[in-house]
Amino acid sequence: MSVADLLLGKPLATSDERAEEIGASAGIPIFGLDALSSAAYGPEAALTLLIPLGAAGVAYIVPVSASIIALLAIVYFSYRQTIAAYPGGGGSYTVASENLGAYPGLLAAAALMIDYILVAAVGISAGVGALVSAAPRLQPHTLALCLGILVLVTIVNLRGVREAGVFFMIPTYAFLGSLLCAIIIGVTKTVLASGHPVAVAAPPVNVAGPATVAVSIWLLLQVFSNGCTAMTGVEAVSNGVKAFREPTVRNAQRTLTVIIGLLAILLAGIAYLVRAYGIQATDPNLPGYQSVISMLVAAVAGRGLFYYFTIGSVLVILSLSANTAFADFPRLCRAVSHDGFLPHSFGFRGRRLVYSHGIYVLAVLAAILLIVFRGVTDRLIPLFAIGAFLAFTLSQAGMVGHWRRNPGPGAGRSKFINGLGALTTGMTLVVVLVAKFTSGAWVSVLLIAGIMSTMLWVRRHYDRVAKEVDISTPLQIEHLGPPIVIVPIESWTSISQRAMQFALTLSPEIHALHVGTEEETTALRDDWKQLVAEPVAKAGGVPPTLVNLVSPYRLIIKPILDYVLEMEAKNPGRQIAVIVPELVERHWYHYPLHNQRAELLKALILLRGSRNIVLINVPWYINA
Amino acid sequence: MSVADLLLGKPLATSDERAEEIGASAGIPIFGLDALSSAAYGPEAALTLLIPLGAAGVAYIVPVSASIIALLAIVYFSYRQTIAAYPGGGGSYTVASENLGAYPGLLAAAALMIDYILVAAVGISAGVGALVSAAPRLQPHTLALCLGILVLVTIVNLRGVREAGVFFMIPTYAFLGSLLCAIIIGVTKTVLASGHPVAVAAPPVNVAGPATVAVSIWLLLQVFSNGCTAMTGVEAVSNGVKAFREPTVRNAQRTLTVIIGLLAILLAGIAYLVRAYGIQATDPNLPGYQSVISMLVAAVAGRGLFYYFTIGSVLVILSLSANTAFADFPRLCRAVSHDGFLPHSFGFRGRRLVYSHGIYVLAVLAAILLIVFRGVTDRLIPLFAIGAFLAFTLSQAGMVGHWRRNPGPGAGRSKFINGLGALTTGMTLVVVLVAKFTSGAWVSVLLIAGIMSTMLWVRRHYDRVAKEVDISTPLQIEHLGPPIVIVPIESWTSISQRAMQFALTLSPEIHALHVGTEEETTALRDDWKQLVAEPVAKAGGVPPTLVNLVSPYRLIIKPILDYVLEMEAKNPGRQIAVIVPELVERHWYHYPLHNQRAELLKALILLRGSRNIVLINVPWYINA
Repeated sequence: MSVADLLLGKPLATSDERAEEIGASAGIPIFGLDALSSAAYGPEAALTLLIPLGAAGVAYIVPVSASIIALLAIVYFSYRQTIAAYPGGGGSYTVASENLGAYPGLLAAAALMIDYILVAAVGISAGVGALVSAAPRLQPHTLALCLGILVLVTIVNLRGVREAGVFFMIPTYAFLGSLLCAIIIGVTKTVLASGHPVAVAAPPVNVAGPATVAVSIWLLLQVFSNGCTAMTGVEAVSNGVKAFREPTVRNAQRTLTVIIGLLAILLAGIAYLVRAYGIQATDPNLPGYQSVISMLVAAVAGRGLFYYFTIGSVLVILSLSANTAFADFPRLCRAVSHDGFLPHSFGFRGRRLVYSHGIYVLAVLAAILLIVFRGVTDRLIPLFAIGAFLAFTLSQAGMVGHWRRNPGPGAGRSKFINGLGALTTGMTLVVVLVAKFTSGAWVSVLLIAGIMSTMLWVRRHYDRVAKEVDISTPLQIEHLGPPIVIVPIESWTSISQRAMQFALTLSPEIHALHVGTEEETTALRDDWKQLVAEPVAKAGGVPPTLVNLVSPYRLIIKPILDYVLEMEAKNPGRQIAVIVPELVERHWYHYPLHNQRAELLKALILLRGSRNIVLINVPWYINA
Repeated sequence: MSVADLLLGKPLATSDERAEEIGASAGIPIFGLDALSSAAYGPEAALTLLIPLGAAGVAYIVPVSASIIALLAIVYFSYRQTIAAYPGGGGSYTVASENLGAYPGLLAAAALMIDYILVAAVGISAGVGALVSAAPRLQPHTLALCLGILVLVTIVNLRGVREAGVFFMIPTYAFLGSLLCAIIIGVTKTVLASGHPVAVAAPPVNVAGPATVAVSIWLLLQVFSNGCTAMTGVEAVSNGVKAFREPTVRNAQRTLTVIIGLLAILLAGIAYLVRAYGIQATDPNLPGYQSVISMLVAAVAGRGLFYYFTIGSVLVILSLSANTAFADFPRLCRAVSHDGFLPHSFGFRGRRLVYSHGIYVLAVLAAILLIVFRGVTDRLIPLFAIGAFLAFTLSQAGMVGHWRRNPGPGAGRSKFINGLGALTTGMTLVVVLVAKFTSGAWVSVLLIAGIMSTMLWVRRHYDRVAKEVDISTPLQIEHLGPPIVIVPIESWTSISQRAMQFALTLSPEIHALHVGTEEETTALRDDWKQLVAEPVAKAGGVPPTLVNLVSPYRLIIKPILDYVLEMEAKNPGRQIAVIVPELVERHWYHYPLHNQRAELLKALILLRGSRNIVLINVPWYINA
């Protein structure tokens, strides 16, 4: 257990639970990493689509970013109310299923799951992408780097939420500090230069040619859709309210305020500076690619120590933004499994009080996405945002229902705010869906439908099983006559003696089976009389019957299984007890020296048997 | 089962055995493939070492080949006698262990096993090597090609020996026919040209430079050692005498005569023509490499249809020569396992009457060799010949012992022939060992030692187990009091009712275990009285005890296991029956929906338990 202890930390008792709670400053890295780090890829995803417009296209980033920030403000006020109304944790799933019904709830859950899986995959791939564009020699190892970081993040999360917070606090604040610094310096320079600053290190000029297409509403909608990926992750706080220390609602709201405020500042600052410095995105598929953040920081402050520190923190933060998904996905799965729509194992807490199964499943699914898309962010972006905005919409719509059912002072105002939130996020969802459908959003739609049907199927199965096994009647004492006991015997050894001894305590009706040729059984039959039948008769018992099973194809297990099933069919309602004598090796290296027929026989009887067949394992341990 | 039927053929009954026997013409491909195909790499391995001698070195191939053919003749007469003396199969293992004792027998067995594994690996790698030198584009896929062919050969052999014979007959005769043709044409041309024929397609002239070293005895010994790889596989017939149709000895001897006669002709012809045409080997590690057979056939007949047909048959025959190993290795393992030196499973016949385990083991070991040496023949050659010559020597020495113990007419002459065989092969073994020790033979020596110690260890283990379990005393009827029954209960369902019903038939002393918090057990305890205790008491039984096990770390299985072991320690000599109620899924896709605690509990009790603990599995099948 010491390797597990080292990797995962010592096991925590259920009674240690309260100690694992967090305050606002630790909450920002845990619940805000995803939302904040989106600032590093959201504007870039939008600007990439503006490349065909040439230098003139850059200016469009300002109105697009303004709309996204406005949307963000509406969503902020909506979620503030959700936190207050659901201090026990108001994730989209909870809010939608409580207020809109089971199906919308499951839809929200499926949408969020897709979102979290993509957050984990995109965060890591964007981080590695940035690293690779800084050190092109690492390019061939993109996928391996992605998977390595995934494993690291998984282990950190299996250790539990508080240590994860400490682990992520330093890079988060380094990222925020350096990016905000760059923005402040840039804005100051721009204002001093009356809006026309001179870049310290100029962005590449030759990469973007002149305009090749004219601007259109359709193009701007696509730009907006790509930019909306910057908003993923803002629902994280409302999901995890319970993880905060008292006063939980205040702490959670404060955390949400800080996260969304910072995100808005980052988005606004980046948009302002991109236009001021005339920074165009570069095509990630061409040589000479540089990320927007990299060009922006270089333009503002040159390629000095500060540049490398900032880019380094971007790399780390992007890779670690996957952590938000690891904090939330398992909690969501637990809530859904609690309602019977996912396997119960999602509700078991591991050694460190985290829902380990959810962490494993998320890690595996993110790994599959990374492998399928070879760790390239560009290919993952179109799948993104659908899940997040579907969940936003359902959550806000659910809150409208909540206020309708809980009228009180201020409910009208609250209902209006949530209604506005639902309307705007719903419209955004439609825009994203239409703009991105053919380029990948259809995958998300399919996955959401698939997850929903799986959840419904799981619940249906659990309901049926519960119906089958639930009884409230007292124990029925009947059919308690002795069972028919069947014992396969190879030869007369201590092992078979032990099995026969136990068989005699069970029932007077014992069938000893011997598989082999006629001669082999005849040889055993002579001994049998003297070794078994006579001693039993002498002790006043019924001598066991020796049955010979001939096997032309040298099979041992099949004839025994057939005999058991035949006895069961011939004796309806009677218990059949199959005793399997088994030689058990004490050492793994003895395992290949003995046939594993007993294991196979047990597995097959269990697979093919019925409720009347009971399997009894009489082990014989060898010391040799 | 239809996929298995398609791949492996329909199962054969034990009574079908006689039908699987073969005559001399089918025996040549089955037992001779390895020996005959060695002609394609043995001379080449020898010539490669002559490269540093330049054009003058080629002449040395004639005396070296002559010594090898002389050795072959001695070995032929020796094995002829072995076949006659051991019509039931006179492999080196049988002959050495019967006449020299168990240890020399095991040494021979270990040597042969190494030999067979190398035959399988080298045959395939040499075939692929030839294919790759004909089609250099396939070079990067060498290892994959090797493994693919290995799988194919394995499947063919799992189908059984007769079909393997038919499958290999055509390529064997194509190989023999075309190579003999080439030799006849070449010899005729050489004689007509008074020993100085003109090559149709001249071998590359610039590949071998002038002499860089002088000839030495040491060099010639190494050349001889490499050339001896051409003799591997000649013992195959004596091993498999039993597989021949009546009259078995005559058929086997005739097959041996044909195989060795053909091999001698091939070796002599190749050596003669190599000198006549002045063909030097080319370095396989340099570009422009061509195999000796390829240069020879091109020189004799030009690069026409005949050339490509011959080279094609060489490719096929080399790849398939591995088949000899697949015919013999399983038989050898069966014989050794019959004496208790290898796991019994090597003696079980599969669906097609072949010893499937031996085939699997050989396939895996050959695959490991191929993977470790990346499918390159050159690296495998130094490991070769040690095993074969060690087995030859021990077999012939054993035959000397046989004639000493069975004096009769002609025994003196026979003893002399086998003695000569033992002496010459023994001397060759020493030469090969010394010449090749540092370049790889040490690996073979280590492996032989390793296999021998494993075999001795297996036998020691079986002896100890037999001593532990063997009894000849009648069944002891004692301690037959009712066991202590332990039943883990999660909640009151049909599943637990079923387990309790069976428990009541076993014993009046039942402990129902519930793992959980104090409150959970209290809730169950109230129901328990009414649902279980009272009905049992009413029926005149002893009410089962409900035991609460508190588990701070949320573990379920460990507390149950601890309780079972504690009860066993407290009640020495008493039987403990652990009843494990288990919900069994009818469909694999329901498997993840239910926890697999029952499986884990069963495995742990079996692992940690003792002879007094019996495990009872009460399955509950769900129809949902």
